[in-house]
Amino acid sequence: MSKKRVVRKKVRPRFHRRTPPGALPGTLAADPGAAQPEIRVIAYGPDEFVEEEIHNLDRLPTLVGKHPVTWVNVAGLGDAAAIGRLGEIFGLHVLALEDVVNTHQRAKVEEYGDHLYVVARIVHLAEHLQTEQVSLFVGKNFVVSFQEHRNGCMAPVVERLQTARGRIRETRADYLAYAILDAAIDSYFPVLEQFGERLDALDDRVSARNAGEAMTRIHEVRSDLLLLRRAIWPHREALNMLARDTNPLIADETRIFLRDCYDHSVQLIDLLETYREMCADLRDVCLSLISNRMNEIMKVLTVIATIFMPLSFLASLYGINFDTQASPWNMPELRWRWGYPFALGLMAAATGGMLLYFYRRGWLGAADELNGTEPNREKPP
Amino acid sequence: MSKKRVVRKKVRPRFHRRTPPGALPGTLAADPGAAQPEIRVIAYGPDEFVEEEIHNLDRLPTLVGKHPVTWVNVAGLGDAAAIGRLGEIFGLHVLALEDVVNTHQRAKVEEYGDHLYVVARIVHLAEHLQTEQVSLFVGKNFVVSFQEHRNGCMAPVVERLQTARGRIRETRADYLAYAILDAAIDSYFPVLEQFGERLDALDDRVSARNAGEAMTRIHEVRSDLLLLRRAIWPHREALNMLARDTNPLIADETRIFLRDCYDHSVQLIDLLETYREMCADLRDVCLSLISNRMNEIMKVLTVIATIFMPLSFLASLYGINFDTQASPWNMPELRWRWGYPFALGLMAAATGGMLLYFYRRGWLGAADELNGTEPNREKPP
Amino acid sequence: MSKKRVVRKKVRPRFHRRTPPGALPGTLAADPGAAQPEIRVIAYGPDEFVEEEIHNLDRLPTLVGKHPVTWVNVAGLGDAAAIGRLGEIFGLHVLALEDVVNTHQRAKVEEYGDHLYVVARIVHLAEHLQTEQVSLFVGKNFVVSFQEHRNGCMAPVVERLQTARGRIRETRADYLAYAILDAAIDSYFPVLEQFGERLDALDDRVSARNAGEAMTRIHEVRSDLLLLRRAIWPHREALNMLARDTNPLIADETRIFLRDCYDHSVQLIDLLETYREMCADLRDVCLSLISNRMNEIMKVLTVIATIFMPLSFLASLYGINFDTQASPWNMPELRWRWGYPFALGLMAAATGGMLLYFYRRGWLGAADELNGTEPNREKPP
Amino acid sequence: MSKKRVVRKKVRPRFHRRTPPGALPGTLAADPGAAQPEIRVIAYGPDEFVEEEIHNLDRLPTLVGKHPVTWVNVAGLGDAAAIGRLGEIFGLHVLALEDVVNTHQRAKVEEYGDHLYVVARIVHLAEHLQTEQVSLFVGKNFVVSFQEHRNGCMAPVVERLQTARGRIRETRADYLAYAILDAAIDSYFPVLEQFGERLDALDDRVSARNAGEAMTRIHEVRSDLLLLRRAIWPHREALNMLARDTNPLIADETRIFLRDCYDHSVQLIDLLETYREMCADLRDVCLSLISNRMNEIMKVLTVIATIFMPLSFLASLYGINFDTQASPWNMPELRWRWGYPFALGLMAAATGGMLLYFYRRGWLGAADELNGTEPNREKPP
Amino acid sequence: MSKKRVVRKKVRPRFHRRTPPGALPGTLAADPGAAQPEIRVIAYGPDEFVEEEIHNLDRLPTLVGKHPVTWVNVAGLGDAAAIGRLGEIFGLHVLALEDVVNTHQRAKVEEYGDHLYVVARIVHLAEHLQTEQVSLFVGKNFVVSFQEHRNGCMAPVVERLQTARGRIRETRADYLAYAILDAAIDSYFPVLEQFGERLDALDDRVSARNAGEAMTRIHEVRSDLLLLRRAIWPHREALNMLARDTNPLIADETRIFLRDCYDHSVQLIDLLETYREMCADLRDVCLSLISNRMNEIMKVLTVIATIFMPLSFLASLYGINFDTQASPWNMPELRWRWGYPFALGLMAAATGGMLLYFYRRGWLGAADELNGTEPNREKPP
Repeated sequence: MSKKRVVRKKVRPRFHRRTPPGALPGTLAADPGAAQPEIRVIAYGPDEFVEEEIHNLDRLPTLVGKHPVTWVNVAGLGDAAAIGRLGEIFGLHVLALEDVVNTHQRAKVEEYGDHLYVVARIVHLAEHLQTEQVSLFVGKNFVVSFQEHRNGCMAPVVERLQTARGRIRETRADYLAYAILDAAIDSYFPVLEQFGERLDALDDRVSARNAGEAMTRIHEVRSDLLLLRRAIWPHREALNMLARDTNPLIADETRIFLRDCYDHSVQLIDLLETYREMCADLRDVCLSLISNRMNEIMKVLTVIATIFMPLSFLASLYGINFDTQASPWNMPELRWRWGYPFALGLMAAATGGMLLYFYRRGWLGAADELNGTEPNREKPP
Repeated sequence: MSKKRVVRKKVRPRFHRRTPPGALPGTLAADPGAAQPEIRVIAYGPDEFVEEEIHNLDRLPTLVGKHPVTWVNVAGLGDAAAIGRLGEIFGLHVLALEDVVNTHQRAKVEEYGDHLYVVARIVHLAEHLQTEQVSLFVGKNFVVSFQEHRNGCMAPVVERLQTARGRIRETRADYLAYAILDAAIDSYFPVLEQFGERLDALDDRVSARNAGEAMTRIHEVRSDLLLLRRAIWPHREALNMLARDTNPLIADETRIFLRDCYDHSVQLIDLLETYREMCADLRDVCLSLISNRMNEIMKVLTVIATIFMPLSFLASLYGINFDTQASPWNMPELRWRWGYPFALGLMAAATGGMLLYFYRRGWLGAADELNGTEPNREKPP
Repeated sequence: MSKKRVVRKKVRPRFHRRTPPGALPGTLAADPGAAQPEIRVIAYGPDEFVEEEIHNLDRLPTLVGKHPVTWVNVAGLGDAAAIGRLGEIFGLHVLALEDVVNTHQRAKVEEYGDHLYVVARIVHLAEHLQTEQVSLFVGKNFVVSFQEHRNGCMAPVVERLQTARGRIRETRADYLAYAILDAAIDSYFPVLEQFGERLDALDDRVSARNAGEAMTRIHEVRSDLLLLRRAIWPHREALNMLARDTNPLIADETRIFLRDCYDHSVQLIDLLETYREMCADLRDVCLSLISNRMNEIMKVLTVIATIFMPLSFLASLYGINFDTQASPWNMPELRWRWGYPFALGLMAAATGGMLLYFYRRGWLGAADELNGTEPNREKPP
Repeated sequence: MSKKRVVRKKVRPRFHRRTPPGALPGTLAADPGAAQPEIRVIAYGPDEFVEEEIHNLDRLPTLVGKHPVTWVNVAGLGDAAAIGRLGEIFGLHVLALEDVVNTHQRAKVEEYGDHLYVVARIVHLAEHLQTEQVSLFVGKNFVVSFQEHRNGCMAPVVERLQTARGRIRETRADYLAYAILDAAIDSYFPVLEQFGERLDALDDRVSARNAGEAMTRIHEVRSDLLLLRRAIWPHREALNMLARDTNPLIADETRIFLRDCYDHSVQLIDLLETYREMCADLRDVCLSLISNRMNEIMKVLTVIATIFMPLSFLASLYGINFDTQASPWNMPELRWRWGYPFALGLMAAATGGMLLYFYRRGWLGAADELNGTEPNREKPP
Repeated sequence: MSKKRVVRKKVRPRFHRRTPPGALPGTLAADPGAAQPEIRVIAYGPDEFVEEEIHNLDRLPTLVGKHPVTWVNVAGLGDAAAIGRLGEIFGLHVLALEDVVNTHQRAKVEEYGDHLYVVARIVHLAEHLQTEQVSLFVGKNFVVSFQEHRNGCMAPVVERLQTARGRIRETRADYLAYAILDAAIDSYFPVLEQFGERLDALDDRVSARNAGEAMTRIHEVRSDLLLLRRAIWPHREALNMLARDTNPLIADETRIFLRDCYDHSVQLIDLLETYREMCADLRDVCLSLISNRMNEIMKVLTVIATIFMPLSFLASLYGINFDTQASPWNMPELRWRWGYPFALGLMAAATGGMLLYFYRRGWLGAADELNGTEPNREKPP
């Protein structure tokens, strides 16, 4: 049990305190526990590619605008000043920057004149299920992305840029944003797959004896699915908005890719809802197993009590001490020649009668067969 | 029980792993377990009909465009290269081709400029319930279709083309696509019909004795219905989109047929939801049967215990060994002339009193009648 | 129980097999069990009225178009050829004719250029609840209607035409269609009224003793309401479409009447949902009655066992055979002068103590009063 | 119990039979039990006010149109002929008049060219909860209103007109209609307030001992709330339609008032849904109280049985009659010097062991504390 | 228990009686218990700032319109005359003023020509959870705000104006309204955070022994969440309306801030729904703990009864008093040499057999392990 508690505690969608109530809108208050940022700039075009890790942001303006696409990725949100400086360089809206630092945003898309602000959440299942916020600013020729930790969620995109696979260097900033969003959505597939396997394993191993423990496991899975659901759902709306709206920052060719990404989010939601229904179903199975077991216990108690109570009564009856000398009516059986065999016979008869009664009621045998309920299964049309 | 597990395992909507997270969009990674493709080309017009099985795709370009409609059907998705080659020949979008190979798509319609990509799922109930993906590319004068295995789901359409039944050869590619979709939707009817029969059979045979087993069966049916529901629902939206939108690839006459097909999908969903509600209803019946049985068991136990406990007490009482010589107050009953008959009478009276009490409370007789609850049934107005 | 089964079997929304999967769209396959058609033609105008039963359809073209409105009613769907011939005469679409024969359609409206196809379902409660499909084709100057059996559902309309009541002869085909639809919707009112009476009767008669049987009845009512709901719901949408859309076949004056008919369908749905909630409520009442009864049984068992177990123990205790001669410590009570009265007193005290304990816990008296929970009811403001 | 039945019977949403199925649309069939009408005419303008009770409708045309607003109020629907005559005088649509007489309409608004037909329902809680239909016809310069009985629901409006409070005489017919609708909506507030008080009182007084009775009360409240909900909901849509649509009969200034009235209907629905959720919550509390009580009963039974069964066994054991003379192995304890104290000690030890076991399992003490579950409540930030 | 009642009573969404039914619309009836108002005027512009507490409203007109923005804040609604006078000065609509006084409004936005009326609700958790109404009138150059009590909910905004932080003095009235609404929405975050902590604490401490008490706590949390939900939901719609609509009183730059505020309301709703699902989940955990405990109790009872009943029977059997002299068949065991050891052995055998039976059924050991249900957790892919 103690282990379970540890697991669940981390899983809970604990709400991170945002800036204090009444604070100035746009206040950038970095979470004291947030990691120090690692800022990496990648600038590229069909025939050019520059990658550099930046420690002094003042170097940045000299890089921006020289190449068709400039991508600034910030891993770690511990330095509010640096984030504010980035906002100034790229002209990012202060409300959006506030949302970058408060990492409990739902996935969303916001238009701010010359740039889009997109929030996505990635998921990873190290020791526990955790979600992390990824923030993107998409401009005409730049993408600024923020991730909470230096995890590898951007790695596939960086690698594709480095190796120039798949014409990505010929595309614009909007395609880069799509590539990052696609990687974020893709992070959900292996996690959901694993939940599917856990549910399958539970389904295979659940029995009357461990139904109680199975219930606990199912509740854990349900909690995790609830957390996942809260994370995935808003992506659907945000991706739909990106794919359908007519913001000029997103090219039509990119919209086809975003539609594909939206499609993946719909698949994820569909799968998740299916798993949630499987949880509910499995919970019902557990409840009926527990209820059956209770019935079985009660049946054993009742059968035993019903057989032995009359027997004990008969035995007690002939243990009465009436003075057989005082009267011929006082327990003449005690002096009968066949008194004892008669008493034993009476007991045997009572027992037999009870057993017959229970047998007739079906309390002794197994459950009735449900013969014939699947008439056509063997010979499908 | 073991048999049940086998059945359910196959039924689960196991999620097939798609291309690894972060892979290049449009990567065609064939499932290693997928069947090798059988490629068949049918080209026809009002007065012409060519059918050919193709092993070398280079022969294909010489066939395409010579006839009003060219239909390429690929049964088996094990050859990614061949699928890629087909995509080149017909100018199919690479994201759509990726979806062809990842056979866990929901039914959908996607427009790609000069062609439509349509996904449908067929269902068949061989040993277990299984769904399969059917992908269609519909162009101005061609249809390219992909199915997972060489099952006969296209057979009725092929046969109609071969025998030229129903003017199908006079129609265009859009009507061919409709015919394939209609066959896919039609595959659900016999399966649903069978579930209806299984539910009817369960309803007929459920009783207090097998309610537990019936619960298990109902849960199996529910799981299957959940799988079917997940498969059918998206067809509704996809078919509605095909029937209502104004894509020039679909002629108005064909839209009337697609509306009919959409109508069938609505009927299927309606039937399915009805079956799901019947499941819930039957489950409630089972639960109340189980609960009634529990009540009955408890009632028997209580009646028996309540009758025999006082009897046993009385018998024990007169078995006390107080020394009747030591005092006249010590169990004088033991020496009464009618002591034993008196004791037996006391027991009989106790039993009678208890039985009367239970009878008055209605624990012995059957349940009360619900007379008169259907006042007008015999004489409807 | 056996009677219940019989009733429910007929009620189930059994799905009639449609044309085989893969059949040519528009195939007219009459249900082998369908009744042979009775075809009746009524042609009328403000000053003319012709009514004729037709056996040879070739006579029909001579009748059509001679009068402002021609109504052909076909009762019985057993003759596919006749239905096909009618389709030719009036130019009806083959997909709609297919739906006429497959009598499991949901209520709907379909536009086919110069005519509308409307499906409605009537309900009647002879021995069991049954729904039947009524199909209407509405053209500029004709109505062709199909009903499954020769029931009297068209009788009120026919009679109004015969007696020229209410200006109906001055109206056009669209008003005739409305009159038929209104009669169909009206068929639900007496049926729903009866369900209301059954629920009222159940509510009046349900008690702890028959709660189990009442549950079964409630489930039957729920099943019937489910069937009714499935039949009524689509009418709402279909009638709304007829009343709001701008199809030129429906005159504006008729739309006001159709809106009234739509209003009735909304009332029906409203009533039905109310009954469904009443069912759920009544089911909860039954469950709490059953649970209370279980509590009561357990309480009786516990009180009896708790009183008699100590008594039996005391009686057994003094039945011990220790040799009082062997030692003064061996059961000296047995030789006390007041031993037996002492033992009886001990038993009485134990019983009294137990009864006091149960009384304090409230297990003996009735339930507490909920005094004062309705403070203002007697004196409403 | 019997009282409860009486109360609920009246409360049920019994459906009044409308005109027989198949009747001519627009048939005015007065309910035989309806009250005879009292017809009152009020005509007013900024500087004029006429009030008159009318017995002969032929006098009416002489009154109408002479003043800016003429209001005809009919209290009692027992005279179909009079209603029909009124319809002729004001040119009211026959379908609307039919709805006036069939007093089971949902609140709605219908446009008929030059007049609007509005249905509202008022509620009053005399002995039972009852709803009544109020029908309004609003024309350019007249309002015709119908109420089921001569209750005082119009009194506040009449009084404001008589005393010329609040500029009402300067307004037009649309404002009068608003005033009547506002009075109808206002009738729900005191009723809902009372349900709130009943729920509060129930919540205060519910305990383990009366949970069963509380369940019954909660079901009654739920039934009433269901009835209220059915009555209130349609007002929302109807008032929204009046407040937003652009019918020229309603002036823009009046729309602001109607929006306020719509707002009240939303508040009512909101409150009602809150009460419904409180009912569900209270029901859960009752169920867990009942379940706890069951647990407590079972615990007492088990503790008693588990303590006394071994004791009784030991007492019976030493009551065995083996012949101690026949063999030294036959119950030598019976002749021990300390046999009886030894037996008593054995019993005490068994009892003590059992009590310890139960204490360790927590079956004897009270429930564990949930210390610390509300860490911040005392010191809110 | 008594303490719980006290807590819940205050929490209930008690409905304050509004003006009596039938009252003139726009009647300002101050709640007799409302606080006397404190009226504070703040007028400001980029370079000016005046703050004054006003006791005589006649002074107000001399202040209004002299500065770019004039903000009148009224804390306390006990003076209907003063509120009416304010309405005259600023030309506020009488229906809106009525809503100011009736402090049970849902959050909403209403347009009245030249001013907007906005209602919000703030929440604070002093001793109990309480919500308060904040009403705003937003004109071209003024904001009039009303709060129920002199709490500090406006303090952050006042302080920002006083210290001229964040360019607030350069903005117009619409931004001031946003600042007040943002402060209102912000009041929900710490409250919800605390509910999250309470749920976490409950989840950590719930066990079989305190599940009943935990249920009560969960119901309290659910009631509070229900109240919060009722308060938060309407903000979403109201803020969306403010942020999206095109009312000229709200500048486009302000709409971006309002969108951010709307976003916060969506986050709150999302969090709240998550907590509600966590409540439901925790309730299920409690129910299964209670049910498991019941099972355990029943198992102990059954094991004890099943072991001791046969033993007691055997002991009673050999306590029978048949006269062994009367016949050789009368209990010859009593005179056997090994009679007593034989009887004890029989009892031991019966006990052993029972224990073996229970062991086989798994009633003695712990629950089965669910080994292997989490196959991939240790090694995530």
